[in-house]
Amino acid sequence: MHLAEYLFRRIYELNIRAVFGVPGDFNLVALDLIKKCGLSWVGNANELNAGYAADGYARVKGISAIVTTFGVGELSALNALAGASAELVPVIHIVGFPSTAVKDKRLPMHHTLGDGDHDLFMEMSARLSGAVAVLDSAKDAPKMIDDTIIACVRSSKPVYIGLPMDFVMVDVDASSLATPLPLEDPQANPIAEEDDAVTAVMERIAMARNPAILVDSLAGRWHGLQPTRAFVEKSNIPCYSFPMAKGIIDESLPNFRGIYSGSVSEDGVQEQVQESDLIIHIGPRPTDLNTAGFKSDLPHIETISFHRDSIHLRKADFSGLHMNGVLRRLSESFCPTRSNSTSSTSGSSSQKSEESAETEPGIDIGDSMDAILGRKVKSSPVVTQNRMWKRVSSWLEEDDIISLDIGTSAFGSLWTRHPRGTESLFQLLWSSIGFALGAAVGAAFAAREQEAESTPSRKRRTILFTGDGSFQMTAQEVSTMVRHKLGVIIFVICNDGYTIERMIHGWDKSYNDIQPWDFKLLPSVFKPDPDTVRTYCVHTEAELEDVLTDAQFGPAKNFEGQEYTPLRLVEIHMAKEDAPRSMHNIIDAICRQKK
Amino acid sequence: MHLAEYLFRRIYELNIRAVFGVPGDFNLVALDLIKKCGLSWVGNANELNAGYAADGYARVKGISAIVTTFGVGELSALNALAGASAELVPVIHIVGFPSTAVKDKRLPMHHTLGDGDHDLFMEMSARLSGAVAVLDSAKDAPKMIDDTIIACVRSSKPVYIGLPMDFVMVDVDASSLATPLPLEDPQANPIAEEDDAVTAVMERIAMARNPAILVDSLAGRWHGLQPTRAFVEKSNIPCYSFPMAKGIIDESLPNFRGIYSGSVSEDGVQEQVQESDLIIHIGPRPTDLNTAGFKSDLPHIETISFHRDSIHLRKADFSGLHMNGVLRRLSESFCPTRSNSTSSTSGSSSQKSEESAETEPGIDIGDSMDAILGRKVKSSPVVTQNRMWKRVSSWLEEDDIISLDIGTSAFGSLWTRHPRGTESLFQLLWSSIGFALGAAVGAAFAAREQEAESTPSRKRRTILFTGDGSFQMTAQEVSTMVRHKLGVIIFVICNDGYTIERMIHGWDKSYNDIQPWDFKLLPSVFKPDPDTVRTYCVHTEAELEDVLTDAQFGPAKNFEGQEYTPLRLVEIHMAKEDAPRSMHNIIDAICRQKK
Repeated sequence: MHLAEYLFRRIYELNIRAVFGVPGDFNLVALDLIKKCGLSWVGNANELNAGYAADGYARVKGISAIVTTFGVGELSALNALAGASAELVPVIHIVGFPSTAVKDKRLPMHHTLGDGDHDLFMEMSARLSGAVAVLDSAKDAPKMIDDTIIACVRSSKPVYIGLPMDFVMVDVDASSLATPLPLEDPQANPIAEEDDAVTAVMERIAMARNPAILVDSLAGRWHGLQPTRAFVEKSNIPCYSFPMAKGIIDESLPNFRGIYSGSVSEDGVQEQVQESDLIIHIGPRPTDLNTAGFKSDLPHIETISFHRDSIHLRKADFSGLHMNGVLRRLSESFCPTRSNSTSSTSGSSSQKSEESAETEPGIDIGDSMDAILGRKVKSSPVVTQNRMWKRVSSWLEEDDIISLDIGTSAFGSLWTRHPRGTESLFQLLWSSIGFALGAAVGAAFAAREQEAESTPSRKRRTILFTGDGSFQMTAQEVSTMVRHKLGVIIFVICNDGYTIERMIHGWDKSYNDIQPWDFKLLPSVFKPDPDTVRTYCVHTEAELEDVLTDAQFGPAKNFEGQEYTPLRLVEIHMAKEDAPRSMHNIIDAICRQKK
Repeated sequence: MHLAEYLFRRIYELNIRAVFGVPGDFNLVALDLIKKCGLSWVGNANELNAGYAADGYARVKGISAIVTTFGVGELSALNALAGASAELVPVIHIVGFPSTAVKDKRLPMHHTLGDGDHDLFMEMSARLSGAVAVLDSAKDAPKMIDDTIIACVRSSKPVYIGLPMDFVMVDVDASSLATPLPLEDPQANPIAEEDDAVTAVMERIAMARNPAILVDSLAGRWHGLQPTRAFVEKSNIPCYSFPMAKGIIDESLPNFRGIYSGSVSEDGVQEQVQESDLIIHIGPRPTDLNTAGFKSDLPHIETISFHRDSIHLRKADFSGLHMNGVLRRLSESFCPTRSNSTSSTSGSSSQKSEESAETEPGIDIGDSMDAILGRKVKSSPVVTQNRMWKRVSSWLEEDDIISLDIGTSAFGSLWTRHPRGTESLFQLLWSSIGFALGAAVGAAFAAREQEAESTPSRKRRTILFTGDGSFQMTAQEVSTMVRHKLGVIIFVICNDGYTIERMIHGWDKSYNDIQPWDFKLLPSVFKPDPDTVRTYCVHTEAELEDVLTDAQFGPAKNFEGQEYTPLRLVEIHMAKEDAPRSMHNIIDAICRQKK
């Protein structure tokens, strides 16, 4: 079997079907083998976008692959792969290398710095990667591939595979393909440690009057999603999510109480959490934007923290175990009678929270904005950030995938309730604008595959919320949506530039301005098939309502009577001074922090 | 004086006026000081494009500056800066850092990997940079800034300056600003070495019957442009340029003979060079695409090679000197009578070369293409690569700046003769597609400044040739052209995908296809002012002729009677199987090389 075929067959085994990337002379021969292995080639508009798409696909399907070319291609993708590294998203990055012969001679090939160094870019990527391999040995390649992929899954980080062009077609021993890759972490040893931890944790929970679970983003990594969900559901302990954990816990659960992030929590939530007498903190990820500037700690409340390989109680530490194993056993320890026993106090708080959300005590400048802007309003007020995110959250459907750029999109959407089964794609740590558009491309491929795999077919919409400044970063990726007929729903928040930057510094400075675009016109540049794109322009709440409730704003039938999903692009025009309440709060907290 | 002001005042001193980049929260405060220092902020659509723009500006004006933000921004720009490093273009990369306080605490801030490492990205960039400094000391900052800028100029490479946000506004001692930076290399020592080298070189030239100068790309670096030009003009020795040296030598000089690159030379040129009995090789840069796959050497001909710090003759090596100093003295050694004494033989060869160019012995598939494509032709044949580049080269004007993407654009244009004073921007070593569009933005800013500085005003057009696949990589930068009313002339060669890749591998493979765009429509997306954009679509030679000779295809007057330069975008549709002769030749040579 050809070496590259072995690699792509392993990739197929991971349930990857779409491969992202851009062709380049050093990877072309490998691309020939993609189709043969049951995979399909996406062909993104550029490598940064391809990297974001791979990230989005991996967040939905668990893992992804991207192919770039040496030097130019791989470096263009580096920001996206650094994002995957920061946010713990497993992406297999395959880089087409020059032949080993020219490397051995240190020839100043194109796509090098001309200094004979052919290892430089691999070494740069190694700083961000869970593992690195250059497949320059036919004998060792199968094991190198297997080890690198296992490392990708177990570390939940991007890995880097260099594929020299003279090794693409060499024959390798493919006998190991008969054995599926052992992707799960090996069994913890000794098991006794997990037993002891379960006992200690259960004892503390039994003693607590008012415990609370705080779920953070690392709970969703390293195969931890199901154990965490099971523990939250079985225990029925009041549960709160950090913003970065959005999507891990079903927000329609009776014991789900809201988004907790210190002073940037949902209304009433910080007070509820502070009334707890025991915190069970799963998968802490204390980054600045996740923790109101490192201010979400609750040192006065006894805390049990669950880390990947260790669990810490006030009086005992357990290490050398697996968090996931302990969570699974804890779930089994909860008998049905335990359920609901802790929900009375918190239940009322939760109700209070919802009430306060109704009254919207935060900043809302809608009506005054109409006056300030001198807008020729119809009977309807202009759309404001707070009102829009509230309205949109009730428009979301189960299983939606929601891709959110950092800025008003993430800070608007993450703090609203989403239906069960939804997944939100965002970078609250890496925070690279333009990510969400690329990620939506990857997510839409993943959603299409999941729809095809599920019986009965599970409908998954891919919805993008991005700002006008963010959109411009990766705009050409709408071409990939058109090319592959991905019926993504795109909301572009048009508010005249980088609003999040304005709020941090330079309120009226021209460097926070951008060129205003006619976003509605953009899809036409990419020559879509007739009636496969619909565009809308919204200024007022009534217009937003019209769009969201329009029966035509959804799948349609084409001329032959076949159902298809058009790409929908909605410009939502809002005041540049407007921002969601959570963004006001986080920026207050962060600006204090940074000084 | 504020630290950032010191930095920007030094940048102003370098004759930089436009600063490229994208705002981000860690660089915002610094951006406040740009205008005060006489600089203007461009605000590109994304960081990769900003990096290419900075590269293009530096190629025209000598040096440039770009500001990005920590992590996300700087990594997005990395491909462009690696290109500047490979191609020896001095760019000052200023990166807004988090405050030193959060770095000291190793806080997992946004835009980090969350592991507390705040040095990682700087260390990655260091691998590509001529120098690196992080300005975390008010006392040392002025010297660090000065040293880094001097290193940028002397190494002709990008440098990296980290600017922590808590140091932007600290007071620094600005007294050193009174002294201009010493940008030139220090005087060689000992001078005697240069004297000896001049004597030895002149002796060899005097003995030669038929000497030839080969100018290569490193002749144009490190302040070598003028000494090289003077030597070529004063000596009047027949001169050939390597492709990467395009623009260094005035191709209208009587002793300029053509582009030499082994088997990928202009017609007749390889034979002429091989008839020489002495080669004076200035600034060798033996990369694969520059040397027909490392096959341009002429070992049977005695060669004098000029390197930055050394000169090698068959029987003697001189080191510890400056190439530029030796070239200057050599120029002075040529008395007027020497002129023309060596031109007789080569003169006739040159004539032969021009004749053979007339007869176009290379591949030209124009007429047969009409038949193959079944095109409904008018009276005029379809545009072919060879005929187009020939026609366009006669349309070019003195002082034009021509930005060329690698692919048919570079291989088409570089092998034709350009008028004197023209500059071609291209990456024959780094070879990153999408570069030329970004570089054209930077070049257009530089051209506008040079027009304003010169008396009488020296008109400089900026002309971009790019392919449809390349264009898509960085397409949103047309928005920056519209925003700043840069009247760039854009030719998009529409030939259904990555033609250069097809020729290397995968002739009909779908991975070399792209989504076809309606390029003409794109500028309208960016909401240009009325009548500031003109678009054209060309399929035949007659249509190309109409565009190039149209009096309207140039500066125009607006409603108030003021002259302005519209952005012009011309789609040139060509067959995907068509490529310039030089590209056929180089790919033959390279594909042999890579195996």
